[in-house]
Amino acid sequence: MTDFSIHNLPFGIFSTAGTSPRAGIAFEDKIVDLPALAALGFFEGILSDASTLAQPVLNDFIRLGKKTTGALRLRVQELLRAGEMPESAWVAQATAQMHLPVAIGDYTDFYSSIEHATNVGKMFRDPDNALLPNWRHLPVGYHGRASSIVVSGTPVKRPFGQVKPKDSELPVYQASARLDFELEMAFIIGKDSEMGQQISTAEAEDYIFGMVLFNDWSARDIQNWEYVPLGPFLGKNFASSISPWIVTMEALEPFRVAGPEQQPAVLPYLQYEGLKNYDIRLEVSLQPEGAAESVICRSNFRYMYWNMCQQLAHHTVNGCNVRVGDMMASGTISGHEPDSYGSMLELSWSGTKPIALEGGDTRTFIQNNDTIIMRGYAEKGEVQLGFGAVSGKVVPA
Amino acid sequence: MTDFSIHNLPFGIFSTAGTSPRAGIAFEDKIVDLPALAALGFFEGILSDASTLAQPVLNDFIRLGKKTTGALRLRVQELLRAGEMPESAWVAQATAQMHLPVAIGDYTDFYSSIEHATNVGKMFRDPDNALLPNWRHLPVGYHGRASSIVVSGTPVKRPFGQVKPKDSELPVYQASARLDFELEMAFIIGKDSEMGQQISTAEAEDYIFGMVLFNDWSARDIQNWEYVPLGPFLGKNFASSISPWIVTMEALEPFRVAGPEQQPAVLPYLQYEGLKNYDIRLEVSLQPEGAAESVICRSNFRYMYWNMCQQLAHHTVNGCNVRVGDMMASGTISGHEPDSYGSMLELSWSGTKPIALEGGDTRTFIQNNDTIIMRGYAEKGEVQLGFGAVSGKVVPA
Repeated sequence: MTDFSIHNLPFGIFSTAGTSPRAGIAFEDKIVDLPALAALGFFEGILSDASTLAQPVLNDFIRLGKKTTGALRLRVQELLRAGEMPESAWVAQATAQMHLPVAIGDYTDFYSSIEHATNVGKMFRDPDNALLPNWRHLPVGYHGRASSIVVSGTPVKRPFGQVKPKDSELPVYQASARLDFELEMAFIIGKDSEMGQQISTAEAEDYIFGMVLFNDWSARDIQNWEYVPLGPFLGKNFASSISPWIVTMEALEPFRVAGPEQQPAVLPYLQYEGLKNYDIRLEVSLQPEGAAESVICRSNFRYMYWNMCQQLAHHTVNGCNVRVGDMMASGTISGHEPDSYGSMLELSWSGTKPIALEGGDTRTFIQNNDTIIMRGYAEKGEVQLGFGAVSGKVVPA
Repeated sequence: MTDFSIHNLPFGIFSTAGTSPRAGIAFEDKIVDLPALAALGFFEGILSDASTLAQPVLNDFIRLGKKTTGALRLRVQELLRAGEMPESAWVAQATAQMHLPVAIGDYTDFYSSIEHATNVGKMFRDPDNALLPNWRHLPVGYHGRASSIVVSGTPVKRPFGQVKPKDSELPVYQASARLDFELEMAFIIGKDSEMGQQISTAEAEDYIFGMVLFNDWSARDIQNWEYVPLGPFLGKNFASSISPWIVTMEALEPFRVAGPEQQPAVLPYLQYEGLKNYDIRLEVSLQPEGAAESVICRSNFRYMYWNMCQQLAHHTVNGCNVRVGDMMASGTISGHEPDSYGSMLELSWSGTKPIALEGGDTRTFIQNNDTIIMRGYAEKGEVQLGFGAVSGKVVPA
């Protein structure tokens, strides 16, 4: 089994020793070097100008449109199927360094799992009224920090900040003692919209290029003190990590499923037709320094209450414009079962229930030198694909 | 009197019919065409490569550092003083179109006026406990939308969205009925920092290139329904407007003043030495279609409780990195007196006190075809300078 099957063929930006970052497609344990393939004439009739493949981010390539990017991906698939990939276009993944695949203009984080929002509401507000009044009427979201989104493998430094101990009248300055992950997926905008333009739920898929795994690192103690009334800021913006390969929406087509029923009915601009959720199995591992990985969460992207088309329709209903490369994350993806909760805040129920690891160790929040690894995988009949992984090691403050 | 005196010499990006956007410096009613001046050899010894001046944004020029940008500005000042500016470097402002001066990577909005935060707290929360517990301990801020920041003169479309009428159980979809401005100033980052790096209050000025006027358009009814628990989103991100000329911190040097006393004392990382506030008089006019301007607010940037150095030290205390071109806005700048309140929400006290305009008309919030104009001006002895204006006309949804 491989994440990067013939059905996947995701896009990324890679380099090897002494070469510049450029576009590639992952296949099994290799990378298809797209500029190399272009130089051999394999994209004639698809790309009039292959220079977008040689750039250090995919934005200009993606901006060519799905007709072009989709045709190029199918051409690579044909070559692989026919066994005609030229030797000079192969790069071993083991010898490559991966980079951020796009320049991210704006990053938005939604809050679209009803199980996650309910868990957080129970812990921090009112167990009997866990969901706030607006939650079932609109996909709650907020803007996050684009500058600190990093690619898988980048170490994450434990943040300092202000926290307010329960037994203290004044806040104190310290390294976060409640460092957490959030299991999320993010979609990448593939087409610009204009200011003042609304993207309908029916049009939304034209604007979505593909998806990655997303770890929305969170310092719960910093967040808890700062977040009223304007939302999370320093509790989140020290780092977010993404998986390096963008899995296209074309590759995810077989995995469409129905989403949860939405009650009460949503306003017309949020209504949609067809299957807009995706059956993507997700898991999170925690690996202490020098020890084995322990899977501490098993969830699924299909649980999302609000789907990506609704998120994008809502985001633009006021005329807010989007740009190629913008990233929109789902919010923590939790399911019904306690082992499907997508954050340590929920898994340890705010630190009250230690999480058991392989070998007898436990955790409530992330310790220094722990590595968090998220993986995603979809399977239907003979069609299988994966997202690879997003991993990040927490280093001391 | 001119905003663009010999003491000011702000940087901007302009174009004229048939020419490309490029860097200029404003002087009186003219623009000094910087690439033209460079081509004549006037920046020899300052710029080894003048190509950064010919780009459509100032980011790469600013990244050269204050030593270079400051020396170039002083060279222009010398030429003007000596009356030696070559005729071919002049462009009339009346013939030029102004553009966004920088590509904005991330945009952050603070909430740093104690008068504004108190007014909003009184109206929406508790008149006796208007300030939330964290407010005097840290400069509250949140991330906003960079894609929809536009330059002065760009029309702003009234946004649609979800609002929840008081007498209704369910939200409705409609054009915002409580459209507002927020009088703010913003500073522009002039130097990159690394992830994990903290910028101290003492270092902060090295990272601040200059300032603009900032109108943080706000749809109060949309904001009020959406903003819990993650902060403002669609109530803000449909548009923000900035003045086109970046006034450098060097030009603002004479206008330093002491800030308000901060009680209780702030944590050490937020303490600072010296004069970090600036005496900049601000005013806001509302101009109905075909009618005269009415000044409806007179405020001053010196009122800010949290200064820019504290904002930047707080923003990076967790290791969040900043990049050249990032924009950080102050939050609404309100003073003590009711006519100094920097938003219609406060001026009309949530719509309960109509604001009188010249000619007998009144407003509680912005009506279609109203234009909002903000101006800023500083004066000390013979040194005077202004920011020009940021204006925007509201057009129907």
